Formats: sequence, structure tokens, C-alpha cells
Amino acid sequence: MQESTIRVAILGASGYSGAELLRLLAGHQGVEVTALGAAKAAGEVVGSVYPHLTPFAARRFEDLGAAEVAARAEACFLALPHGESMALVPKLLEGGLRVVDLGGDFRLAAGDYPAWYGFEHGAPDWLGKAAYGLPELFHDEIREAVLVANPGCYPTPVALGLVPLLRSGLVEPEGIVVDAKSGISGAGRNPTPTTHFARADGSVRPYKAGGVHQHTPEIERALELATGRPASVTFVPHLVPATRGIVATCYARLVSSARAEDLLGTLADSYGGSPFVRVLPEGTFPDSKRVAGSNTLELGAAVDARTGTAIVVGALDNLVKGAAGQAVQNLNLMHGFPETAGLETLAVYP
Amino acid sequence: MQESTIRVAILGASGYSGAELLRLLAGHQGVEVTALGAAKAAGEVVGSVYPHLTPFAARRFEDLGAAEVAARAEACFLALPHGESMALVPKLLEGGLRVVDLGGDFRLAAGDYPAWYGFEHGAPDWLGKAAYGLPELFHDEIREAVLVANPGCYPTPVALGLVPLLRSGLVEPEGIVVDAKSGISGAGRNPTPTTHFARADGSVRPYKAGGVHQHTPEIERALELATGRPASVTFVPHLVPATRGIVATCYARLVSSARAEDLLGTLADSYGGSPFVRVLPEGTFPDSKRVAGSNTLELGAAVDARTGTAIVVGALDNLVKGAAGQAVQNLNLMHGFPETAGLETLAVYP
Amino acid sequence: MQESTIRVAILGASGYSGAELLRLLAGHQGVEVTALGAAKAAGEVVGSVYPHLTPFAARRFEDLGAAEVAARAEACFLALPHGESMALVPKLLEGGLRVVDLGGDFRLAAGDYPAWYGFEHGAPDWLGKAAYGLPELFHDEIREAVLVANPGCYPTPVALGLVPLLRSGLVEPEGIVVDAKSGISGAGRNPTPTTHFARADGSVRPYKAGGVHQHTPEIERALELATGRPASVTFVPHLVPATRGIVATCYARLVSSARAEDLLGTLADSYGGSPFVRVLPEGTFPDSKRVAGSNTLELGAAVDARTGTAIVVGALDNLVKGAAGQAVQNLNLMHGFPETAGLETLAVYP
Amino acid sequence: MQESTIRVAILGASGYSGAELLRLLAGHQGVEVTALGAAKAAGEVVGSVYPHLTPFAARRFEDLGAAEVAARAEACFLALPHGESMALVPKLLEGGLRVVDLGGDFRLAAGDYPAWYGFEHGAPDWLGKAAYGLPELFHDEIREAVLVANPGCYPTPVALGLVPLLRSGLVEPEGIVVDAKSGISGAGRNPTPTTHFARADGSVRPYKAGGVHQHTPEIERALELATGRPASVTFVPHLVPATRGIVATCYARLVSSARAEDLLGTLADSYGGSPFVRVLPEGTFPDSKRVAGSNTLELGAAVDARTGTAIVVGALDNLVKGAAGQAVQNLNLMHGFPETAGLETLAVYP
Repeated sequence: MQESTIRVAILGASGYSGAELLRLLAGHQGVEVTALGAAKAAGEVVGSVYPHLTPFAARRFEDLGAAEVAARAEACFLALPHGESMALVPKLLEGGLRVVDLGGDFRLAAGDYPAWYGFEHGAPDWLGKAAYGLPELFHDEIREAVLVANPGCYPTPVALGLVPLLRSGLVEPEGIVVDAKSGISGAGRNPTPTTHFARADGSVRPYKAGGVHQHTPEIERALELATGRPASVTFVPHLVPATRGIVATCYARLVSSARAEDLLGTLADSYGGSPFVRVLPEGTFPDSKRVAGSNTLELGAAVDARTGTAIVVGALDNLVKGAAGQAVQNLNLMHGFPETAGLETLAVYP
Repeated sequence: MQESTIRVAILGASGYSGAELLRLLAGHQGVEVTALGAAKAAGEVVGSVYPHLTPFAARRFEDLGAAEVAARAEACFLALPHGESMALVPKLLEGGLRVVDLGGDFRLAAGDYPAWYGFEHGAPDWLGKAAYGLPELFHDEIREAVLVANPGCYPTPVALGLVPLLRSGLVEPEGIVVDAKSGISGAGRNPTPTTHFARADGSVRPYKAGGVHQHTPEIERALELATGRPASVTFVPHLVPATRGIVATCYARLVSSARAEDLLGTLADSYGGSPFVRVLPEGTFPDSKRVAGSNTLELGAAVDARTGTAIVVGALDNLVKGAAGQAVQNLNLMHGFPETAGLETLAVYP
Repeated sequence: MQESTIRVAILGASGYSGAELLRLLAGHQGVEVTALGAAKAAGEVVGSVYPHLTPFAARRFEDLGAAEVAARAEACFLALPHGESMALVPKLLEGGLRVVDLGGDFRLAAGDYPAWYGFEHGAPDWLGKAAYGLPELFHDEIREAVLVANPGCYPTPVALGLVPLLRSGLVEPEGIVVDAKSGISGAGRNPTPTTHFARADGSVRPYKAGGVHQHTPEIERALELATGRPASVTFVPHLVPATRGIVATCYARLVSSARAEDLLGTLADSYGGSPFVRVLPEGTFPDSKRVAGSNTLELGAAVDARTGTAIVVGALDNLVKGAAGQAVQNLNLMHGFPETAGLETLAVYP
Repeated sequence: MQESTIRVAILGASGYSGAELLRLLAGHQGVEVTALGAAKAAGEVVGSVYPHLTPFAARRFEDLGAAEVAARAEACFLALPHGESMALVPKLLEGGLRVVDLGGDFRLAAGDYPAWYGFEHGAPDWLGKAAYGLPELFHDEIREAVLVANPGCYPTPVALGLVPLLRSGLVEPEGIVVDAKSGISGAGRNPTPTTHFARADGSVRPYKAGGVHQHTPEIERALELATGRPASVTFVPHLVPATRGIVATCYARLVSSARAEDLLGTLADSYGGSPFVRVLPEGTFPDSKRVAGSNTLELGAAVDARTGTAIVVGALDNLVKGAAGQAVQNLNLMHGFPETAGLETLAVYP
């Protein structure tokens, strides 16, 4: 079903996820980027904002509507602020495009939006069309989908780390604790007090603690989607002084006396064929630096036998496997490209 | 019982904790530093290693034995590698000195050392003489002690954050999870692969996960000492790309439906008179940067009512409230100095 | 002429220099801070913006005019955006206050302002009243002054590094090159693209190269004021990924074949009595980290005999010796306090 | 003359330059890596040291002599400590290999080694065989060479920035000042006090100031090689708290009253056809972050008309265009591969 080359649009192309999509698509043989949508940056050349995006340097950001996008592209990435995709997606789908939405608008059930995102969902009928874009777990759904809800940066390592253990009955789905640490680029390109270097440098701090971060229900839903059983998760994100990277440390009660090697064996079996998941040897643990710039997820695990606790740790680059890289991976599945197209480059380390 | 000025020795003065003791004692009116012990740096002037320690710049590190220390000082700080204090402390105490040991040699029960530190304790009879040096919890014991086991950097924020909630019955002592993030200076001054800038910059990673870090039993013991009830803790430390600072995020099951304001009220009541504990308003959380260079511990709390979980977060400077500052605070109590002597300076922020 | 305690106001108290003034004045026995002016932050308590400023936590920022300030204080620090002090200073001086202006409004000759600051000076008659606030060079003028123009962060290390060598005829005043590196806090507290962590982290870059930075004429004027001879300086500032610190590397042609020890001897002789200048031994060089949080300037020097070039390097904390610390030092001279009052604390290192 | 695939060895494969060679060669279609030499790491699998190098993870480092290398490869990269290549290179060349030496052993004239590297050159007769590996300047020599001396990280941006201006007579070759700032990875993978995170984080400092850094004669020689006229350079390197990146700020006297646009036009004309040099628009300046992970050199220029000074700034990734990337580029020329083979990936930004 692979088409030789498809025309692709990016809306929200001037943000960090948009720029990362361009970086990756520059190395993708099957894609031609035909439209760069951006509201505030409309009219500017890409090179004035992102000189490193050499192949696109002379291209211009444009203020684009759904009709123009549909006229110029067969597929579209949306990297827009939460709440802006809802209105656009139906038009793009009706225009015949395949859509990967990097925002949160199609990740939850309609009833969850008022409490977690602060708005009523504007296109509840279309929610059912969206596949949840975790290729390692929902490969077949994504291949058939016209709309993929690209997961949040935090849910990705949590779901990929926990699902195999939950499916195999090694850990309990209730009482899970997820303590996540994220680099500052997760806060986006807009300068705010949070993103000020003088505030963030040397600073480690939690935020949105207490079950109020919007990725909480997404994590629980992803776990339930993949395992068929409800899960309850206490989730606390932290900001750490790095540009890229998320480390999610997950704590779950062991059902019986499994050892670290049991957890690691289960993870390795689950992801043996996956080009983007690296399960680490016992006694070693994921490192966010070691995946920077790549679409790799590192997974590690340990057991605290004294307390009967499984510890599963996932590390990824929040802008790649946590956003743009996963989005390209989803597009690859949707269009029949090789799953690794545009995603072959290794992490830049150290 | 305050003496006007006491003579103080520091053994292990050339490491980071030693240097930090010197920085703080430079501003302490009641103390004269009369001996600077250091094995490898013996013979070097302080200024060649730490030019910033202006008042001590011309002083020399010496290779000192217990007898010389006893001849020159009434009190002694030990900032030595684990296992080196055991042999020294009895001699120093017999020489009439008061001792604050910043290492781990007097923090646990004798039976814990083989499993957690890898050695048999060499002075088990003296363990009973050691007060556990958390002034906010063990004020009276410390005032009477001749030997204080200065707590580890991780146990300090955990114990101070959890003990009031455990004492008041708000949270359960079983099934506690502590996820801690530490700056690199906690690994000491010795250059290793772990402390290499190119490896640590941009890197977040867990280490010693799985109930193997030696602060695990210290945390559990501190909680039991302070509350009279055993506690079980799953503890995972992480390294983050900062020089100073620890943030410990503690997860405990709520006994009943307490709210964040209940937790915060309990913490505020417990530490109302303490000059070094800052309990934050609801909805705000500790930040390791905001305590850098000071002896302050920031505490914050939240409740995830969905999962019945209390989240208590403590942040401190691992070299100050997590080591040298707390040691000076302990000396102040032991000698009847004002508790804040040498510890008045504010954090350097941003 | 020392008064036991003076009442001091700070206008622009909510910015980084204002906060640093508060940090330092908290340890100053001769000063009572009686007014905290801030336009945007007016009404907020200090503790909500800067929780680390414990002694001021409950105080409020106010929107204050000159008359109110004059009624409440004998001295005033101005930490305002460039161009805002001009109108205020005359009123404050007429109200009998002594003023230290941390901005650029009183550092140059009136004729320089249109070209370098983009405005006509609004109070040219008062420019003559301003002493240039480099205490190590203009001690007597500052003691007599009612208005001190606190130097810019870049001119301080350059002038203190070069003036002794120029005065002694060791280097030529023409053709000096100054390459300076600054931490991000120098850009102020306001979030901008420049201060975004994701942009600044890992980034080294020049800015305002080509003789257009407003500190260029200030450097040349400071050198001429102190030596009586005009100097010409090519100045290029750079941003480096640190919160605090400036390192200024100055290149000047040697008049004859002086050696590094000659330069260092001259510097040491000039600053032998200064509590805030540390001249380093030959072969060692200043380090911005080693002065962080302190009012110390580190100076080092080398000679490239092959090219006949003197290399003089100065390092300071841009918020302390480069701003608030120097301002306090100036106030100390103006009011007859010990020069080190409020400035005794050592650098926080590492 | 392109061969379809060549077998390539890397000696010193476990250091940072070696790892970076592997990262880049993983994407090079014309190369098969057949030997990974490393003394200390011999026996270890690549994946245990560098898990991110997925395609090589199961390969082992070996302790290899020249004969084994010659038997297994047609080309060899040497990424060894200075002084170790001298003895190996003749054997490898005699074995018929093409060699790219990333160390300093073949960059200078024989007579320079005692003074700048501290050893007599052991293979002076072979020095004449070495092409200096700056492809943008010595393209033809490199294509014909069997031995390429890959330039040092500092000389690359300096020579590429200054040579076009010197050739066109815009600036004087005497009295050039080069102030360079480097990330910590330039100090290598070995942990030392210099590379300790706690020392380097937040620290800016010069080192080897005073005409003693071994890249000084290399810079002068590169300028003379490319322009035919001797040049004199005062060079001071600095360490800045970043992992990767060098920014070299070069100051040269203008011969006449050229403007920034003249300098930039000359640079643009010189490098118009080069895939790896990005000349920036007037008023914008290079940023080391913007080239991280890529083989790009950014060049910018300004003029200080007041002082008659040209300011030319170059930024590169010291491990790529400053080492491994340039080495691959040289191999590409030597073997007739496309110059960009293995070097197409864009910088990872932010």
C-alpha cells in the first residue's frame, strides 16, 4: 500500500515539535513537505527561525486553512496548542487527508475534556475515529486509521514500560506511582517564567502534583486500552535542567515474587521486534541523554524484594519518541512506509 | 552552657563537605578552626584547592591522627569515606572531644552494616552513644550527645517531610515510595565516569534502584526512631544535571480523606519554630535552586484524592542541609550556640 | 561619619539586581530597608516572587514616587531599566537622599546617550554630580558623592584589570580587544527568546558584536577617567550557558617585554589593600564559578611573548560585583560603613 | 575512482572521537567498519560503553597492531592520544592503507614538536606525505593524499573564518587575536578534575593562556599554508559549561575601511559551493548549539569601524566538524565518495 512519495503538511510548524518534524522529514525519502502552517510566524522564512533546518531554510511559514491544506497534501501533522485541532481535524478528514495530531484533542473520551483540559470537546463524534498512536502497542489500529492521536510525551514511556508487565500479570494495575522528570523543551518554545534559563538552570522541581496533570487520565486510558483492565496511577511530573529528555520511573506492586530478570525478560519478549525499544541489561538503567535526538525508548527494570515493588524506568527524547518521531512512525504505519523511514539516525551522545 | 569560642577540627577537609564546613564556619563567631585533616591533600595550602575560601587560603591540610586532633580541638567534624570513622571516633571521644560524623558509620544498627555497607562494624559498642542528627526531630538527644551521626543527604528531606504526617496518623507507614533526584556534587570531588560533565550534562538517570542504596535502611530507621513504628520504603535515587540540590518526592497512602491543606497544616505546626524549614503554600512546590547555598529545607505537599495518595516533597542543598550545614547545626546544639550560628546566609538565587 | 542605621529604599526591587540587593542587605547591620519599589509587581509580597528572601518574605512591593521614597529613606538604590533613572534622580537628590544608580543613565557624558542608548539625556546638568562607582579606583570621589553611577557588569572587570597596567605604562591604550562571556542572568528577569532555557542551554554565541554594545563607551571612559589618557577598545560580549558570571578576557599590546609576573605584580600592588580583588598566581586563571554569590573579582594575567600581547582576565558575579554587591560597596563608602558590610559571605562553590 | 564499499578500521575507537566516527559511519553507505581498536577497552562490547551505537552494539573493541589493521581494512582512522600515531602511520601506509589521523602528530613541521608537544617527532620523513585536512581549503591535496592530518578542533573555525579575508587582503595577518570557547567534551572521555561536572557546571575560565596551547602553531601554519604569507596569532582557549561546541572569535586589523557586508560577501563567495559552511546574514552571529551533532560550520562577521577591527566568528561541533565529521569528510574526498556521505544529518536543535 506504500505510495512512492506523499505530500505532507505541518500545521504549527514553527514550534519545537514542528521544527523536529522538519528535521526528521528532511531524511525521509517518502515524504515531500508541501505546506508549513504557522499563525504567528506566518510570512517568515524557516531559516530566520531555525537556521539549522538547511533544506527548508528558504521556505516560508504560512497562515493556512483546512481547505488549502487539503489541496496541497495527502497527510497532515498537527502540532497545535491543545483545543485547536478539534475544529480542524473533521475538515481535514473530510478532505481526504490522513492526520496525525500531536496535541491532546483526540486522546481521551469526550467526557474527560471538561475536567482535564477545561473545555467541552467540539467534535465528539470524531473521537471514535482516532487510533491511539503507540505503534508498539496498537500497530494494527494505526495502520488502518485515518486519524492518529499521537500520545503525550509522558504517557509514552509509562505505557510502554508497564503494559507488558500488566498483560503478563506480573504487577497490579491499582496503586501505580509514576514519577517523571522532563527537560524544559517540553514547555514549548514560548518564553515564560518557567522556561527562563536563570530559573531552570540548577533547578529541580515538581509541578502540577496532586493528580491534576492532563496526562494522568491519558496514562490510565492507555493502560486500560492495552490491557483491558482499569488502572489507577498517581502521576507527578518534575522539571529538570536539561533541554531534552524524559525519564519516567514507575512503581507498581508485584503480584508475586518476580525478579528483575523476569520483568526484563517480559519487556524484551514484548519488544523484541521493535526497532525503537532498547531493553537494558539487569543492573543498568535508562539515561535520557543516551536517546537524545533519536526515536529510541530505553527501558530498564528492578525489583525491591523487601517491599514487593516493581520499578520500571523509561527514557526518551520528549521531542522525538515523545512527539515528532513517534508522529513520523505513525505516519509510516498509516502509509505503508518502512517503520523506520526518517528515523534511522542514532542519538547524539555525549 | 555556651562556651565563648571552641577549637574545632575537620578531618576530610579537602572534600566537598569539608570545604562547605569551612565556608560556613568562616561566618561562625563561636568557632575557631584549628586543624584541617586530609590524607591525599596533606601539605597543600587550602587556597590552592579552594581559592574561594579566603580566610583559610594560607592554611595547610595535614595528615592528622586522633591524638593530634584531640590535642588541638574540643570538637571534630568527620567528613571521611564510609568505614573510616569507625576506628577514629572512639579515640576522639575518649580524648574528650565532641564529634559530628558526616559519614554513614554511626547511622544504623550494627547488624545492618554487612548488608548495606559491606563491612562489619568495628565499634559496635559506640553505636549506642550516637544521636541521629536531625535537629528538627531529635533536638534534645543531640543537645546531650557527645557523638552525632549526621544524616545522609537523602534521609534528611524524607524524614522531615514524612514524620509529622506519620506521627499524626495521616499516612500509612507501609508502602511508601521515595523518588529522589540529586545533583552531581553528591558523588563527591573525586573524578569518575559518573561525574564527567559530558556524561552528566543533559542526563537524567536512576542508579542503585531496587532497594540497594545504603540510605534505604537509614530512611526506614529514621522514620521508626521518630514515630516508634516500623516503616517500609521503596527508594530510588536519580542523578540530574545540577551541581547542588536534592528533591525527594515521597508517596504515601492516606489513612483517610485528608486534603493538601491538612498535610501542610501538620507540617507547618511541626516546624513552626524551626529557622530552617520553609513549608510552602498549597499549590506551590519545592525547588532545589531556591535553597542552594543555604541550610533551608523547603517542604510542599499535595493530595491525589483519586488514588488516596499523599505527595510530600522536600528540597535541600545536599552539601548544606544535606551535609555540612546540618553538621554545624548539630554542633550548635551540642555546644549551646544559637542554632543558626554560621547558618544565617540566604540562598544564592537565581 | 557613619550613622548607626540608615533607612534605604530600592526602586526596581523585583528584578534580579533588586533581589540581590535584598539578599545582601539582609546581612548588613547598618541598613534598614524601608521601601521596595516595583511597578509591575506592586502589591505582591516579596515571598511570592522570591521565597528565598526570608527576612523580607512578608513585605510588599509598592508603586512608589520620588516623594514617598524621600519621605521614607536616606538612601536609595535604583535598579531600573535604562532611561528611567534620569527623571527620578534629580528629585531624590533634591529630597536629600544619597543615590546609587545601577542603570546606565549617569555613566556617560551627555553627548554619548543618543548614539549608545538611543535617547537624549534628560538631566544633563546632574551628570557632573555622579561619581563613577568603581571603589577600587575612585574611592575618594565616591566617599564624597551624593550620586554614584554604579558601573555596568562588563566595564567592572575590564577597568579593574587594565587600569593598573595602563597607569604603569606596561600596555598601550590603543587597540585593546575585550572578549567577554556572560551568564544569562545578565539579560534580566523578563522571559525572552534569549533567556529561554532550550535556546541558551548548550549555546555559546556572541551578540552586539561590531562596536555597538552600550558598554563600549563606558569601558573607554572608565579607562580614560582612571588613567587620564584616551583608550580604544573593541568589545564583543558573548552569552554562555550559565546563570551567573562574567569572564572578560582583555588583550593589549605590551609596550616593552614585560613578563606575566610583572603584570601580576602590578595588579597585586594596586589591589593589595582591597578586600574584594583576588590576584591569582602565575599560570592560574580566573573562574567565574569561584566567585559566584560573592563580591570578589578574580584577576589573572599572562603574556604571549611571541606576539607581544598582554592577556588580562577578570571574573566576577555579574549580579554581585557586577551590580548589587558593588552598589552596596558604594553605599558603604558614601555612608562611612565598613567597606565590607553586607558583603562578607564567601562564594558558594562548587 | 569511487569504490563501492571500503573496509575501514578505527584505532582509538572507545574515546569520544571514536564513538562519533561510529555514529557517523553507521549512516555511510560506502563504508564497512571492520576493526575497532582500543587499548584499555579491549574485550568489551561497544554496547556496554556506548549503548546508543545500536548497529555496533555487539561488536568488540580489540587491541590491534598495524599488521592486523592492514589485513582487515583499506582505510584507517586514528583517534589516539598525541604521540601515538607517529609510530603507527608509517606501517599503515606501507601496508597500503589510506589514513586519517585525528591526533596532532602530522599537523606541524618536525621542528615544532619539541616545543609544542614535548617530544621529538619519530617519523619526520613521513610528515611531507600528510595533507592538512581542511577540505574547504585543501580539497585537491586531500583527494590525492594517502595520509591526512585531520585538523585540531580550534584551528578549523579559525582558518576557515580568516583565510578568505586574508587572501582577499581585507585584514592584516599580523596581530590577530583568537578568543575561543570550548565545551567540555574537547577534554576527552577520561575523568579528570577539569571534566568534573561540579567544577565545570556554571564555570567559564581560560586555560593555557599566554601562547602555550599546541593549536597556536597549527593555526599560524594553516593560515600560512592557505595564504602563502606568515601570520601571527594570540590564541586563548576557554572552557564553558557545555558538552559540545566551539565558538572562535577572531579579531584582525582591517587593511582599509571594509564593512561587515564586504567580509560576509567574501566568505559567502569562498564557500558558496560548500555543503558544510553556513555564512550568516549581517547582524546575526554563530551559535554553537545550532550546529550540534552536524558537520556544519557557522560563520559570521562584523566590523568595529571605530577601531578598524574585523570580527569573524566561527562555530562548530568540536566532535563533528572539529574532529570525526571532518575526518569522514576527508575520507570521502580520498576515496571519491560524495563529500556529504555519512554527514547528511541536521543539527539536533534545540
